[in-house]
Amino acid sequence: MITLLSDFGYQDAYVAVMKGVIAAIAPKTPTCDITHLVPPQDILAARFNLLTAYPHFPAGTVHLAVVDPGVGSSRRAIALQTPSGFFVGPDNGLFSGIYDRAPKKEAEQLSKPDYWRISEPSKTFHGRDIFAPVAAHLENGVPIGALGDFIDPATLVKPDFPSFINYANGALNQKPVRATGSLQYIDGFGNLITNIPGDVIPDHPWMLTVETPDGPQEISGAHTYSDVPIRTLVALVGSHGFVEVACNCGSALVNLSPSAQSLVTVGSIASLADRI
Amino acid sequence: MITLLSDFGYQDAYVAVMKGVIAAIAPKTPTCDITHLVPPQDILAARFNLLTAYPHFPAGTVHLAVVDPGVGSSRRAIALQTPSGFFVGPDNGLFSGIYDRAPKKEAEQLSKPDYWRISEPSKTFHGRDIFAPVAAHLENGVPIGALGDFIDPATLVKPDFPSFINYANGALNQKPVRATGSLQYIDGFGNLITNIPGDVIPDHPWMLTVETPDGPQEISGAHTYSDVPIRTLVALVGSHGFVEVACNCGSALVNLSPSAQSLVTVGSIASLADRI
Amino acid sequence: MITLLSDFGYQDAYVAVMKGVIAAIAPKTPTCDITHLVPPQDILAARFNLLTAYPHFPAGTVHLAVVDPGVGSSRRAIALQTPSGFFVGPDNGLFSGIYDRAPKKEAEQLSKPDYWRISEPSKTFHGRDIFAPVAAHLENGVPIGALGDFIDPATLVKPDFPSFINYANGALNQKPVRATGSLQYIDGFGNLITNIPGDVIPDHPWMLTVETPDGPQEISGAHTYSDVPIRTLVALVGSHGFVEVACNCGSALVNLSPSAQSLVTVGSIASLADRI
Repeated sequence: MITLLSDFGYQDAYVAVMKGVIAAIAPKTPTCDITHLVPPQDILAARFNLLTAYPHFPAGTVHLAVVDPGVGSSRRAIALQTPSGFFVGPDNGLFSGIYDRAPKKEAEQLSKPDYWRISEPSKTFHGRDIFAPVAAHLENGVPIGALGDFIDPATLVKPDFPSFINYANGALNQKPVRATGSLQYIDGFGNLITNIPGDVIPDHPWMLTVETPDGPQEISGAHTYSDVPIRTLVALVGSHGFVEVACNCGSALVNLSPSAQSLVTVGSIASLADRI
Repeated sequence: MITLLSDFGYQDAYVAVMKGVIAAIAPKTPTCDITHLVPPQDILAARFNLLTAYPHFPAGTVHLAVVDPGVGSSRRAIALQTPSGFFVGPDNGLFSGIYDRAPKKEAEQLSKPDYWRISEPSKTFHGRDIFAPVAAHLENGVPIGALGDFIDPATLVKPDFPSFINYANGALNQKPVRATGSLQYIDGFGNLITNIPGDVIPDHPWMLTVETPDGPQEISGAHTYSDVPIRTLVALVGSHGFVEVACNCGSALVNLSPSAQSLVTVGSIASLADRI
Repeated sequence: MITLLSDFGYQDAYVAVMKGVIAAIAPKTPTCDITHLVPPQDILAARFNLLTAYPHFPAGTVHLAVVDPGVGSSRRAIALQTPSGFFVGPDNGLFSGIYDRAPKKEAEQLSKPDYWRISEPSKTFHGRDIFAPVAAHLENGVPIGALGDFIDPATLVKPDFPSFINYANGALNQKPVRATGSLQYIDGFGNLITNIPGDVIPDHPWMLTVETPDGPQEISGAHTYSDVPIRTLVALVGSHGFVEVACNCGSALVNLSPSAQSLVTVGSIASLADRI
């Protein structure tokens, strides 16, 4: 199985062209769209959607991701192998979360035109000419080492992405009293998804504060949307495993209009009171 | 084959996550999207699209439908079996039209975590944790009775949906002189689709009246869009089998701006004159 | 494999209905969406997307295209066979580019109801009742000649579409010093795609002029987006093989607002200076 993710949208034939190229090399391979509505050239949004989806696919799945503002420049084209499957696309940080998580892995630069559609690829559509053919050859069983040159993993591009900070009390594996992070993605329902993993939130009751143009807003932590009245903001651990701000039967985005990568803090009620 | 219908949209990875879960349990099962652009939490729109699509799929198809405003609350998760296939989703009226039509049927409450992704499902994404896995197990041949507890069909939730009334002249199977109903769905072309079945309209010539903010509008009945001049409103029996108001090469929605569930009457010219 | 292209959008179940009809006749046939966001009844946009996609699919693929403003009227329903595959849809110019290119071909009018869903098809949805079933039967191996009556190719409808003119210096196969054409498609990124094939542009350096409401605009020719600074207009040969106007990390459509089918000229710098 091959999954596809891009910022190509659904209006044009670009996604279908990649699927045609795949069907010509690896007939009968099922394909699955993750999404093609990534905001143009938004590597962090692409990365979040891929991180959300890939763990649910069978081991060995090939994930093709083409959000590629540097197409035609000197950025590297790469393929990765992990125990979860294969990942093919540009080396621009798209796969960083996956690569960090994998216990065993290999990265190759795609430098062997034998596995491309044509030896002189278009300067504007490597999805068609390099990435889709390579994904299809991986699906056919070509070993990753055949595709090009081994890359030192330390040289893979890291995304420009703030980490979260866990202010635990010093003991290993202890639940924090406070953690800070930032927004990493806003989904189609207007949920504001932070980069704070759900397993570091403190025990209930807890609060979240998010920076907005109107100053910091405080939001109560809960377990699910319907724990709060209709059209009320709520903080919870979303199905993707991160802390998010949602609005029961509404849009947190519309209600809060946060800035890009807004600062977010979660903490026990007591710890936040201390801070003020 | 498994079909999917939801209000998740195409921007995020939520639909792909469900397909990944299906592929992990029932590899090589083809999937088919009915639509994922159901307006958020609009059970009636979801119900209409499912009713339009399911009769065209092969018997035995599994239809997975997740428009689920009550996720995480006490609403039941269910599976239905009919001669047309299987239906999996929340018990909120989504499947009522299908269930009513089926001559033979069985309903089960999904209470056996053996067939879920995890025994303690997320409170916000039963599509991933309960419905997609159950659909995949049905596709694999697990009998519906194994999934949980038998439900008395009389207890299934009915949607909050007005019926149409057929003012026939008393004789059984007689064509009506007049029928009243309401709008049940507005499609992407702006066609206003009523809940009046096409087989109860009177013989030609006939008229339709629809309530709008500007008062009742009268529209002539015809056979197809091009029976009337360009940009003219027309009433006809649509491909889904219900009476609809359309606009030849235009949008009836833009031209009429009806209220939600607007009242609609169809009748022979004579019967409508009587009424006035 | 069957591909689908239409102006049905993704909101409604109409596309799924066609896929259900296909699955009922040719089970296990993979389908691939080219796009369903063709602007309503825009035959030229549909034609461009099909031309872009079909050459990448395996020979023998069945391409189903339903942009059909004349549904229910006397326009012909047709199927074509070429060395690339089969094409099924209305005879309104949709397939003209493909038919012109093919060295060997056959066209049939779909007049045998044996291969339809029902012998009296709906007047508004031939995609469901005629085209999808015929596509599925072709996939099953039914020969094209069985579907209806042979059509004289000279009678196929031509689209209302201006040609480009190549002002070469008279010698056969010589690169032109100037060529004129028009816009044929605007893609989802706002790229303005002309009907001038990439193989007729002059050697570098070259220029493009496009008519806009603010008068003619001159744009430098280059090889790829990143050859020019961010948010700068650039002319290049796009991945589809035609000359296009793009904007590096921006939208040429937003920057230029061209009129429909705007005139475009490309030429060597010298030839354009001559002209002024």
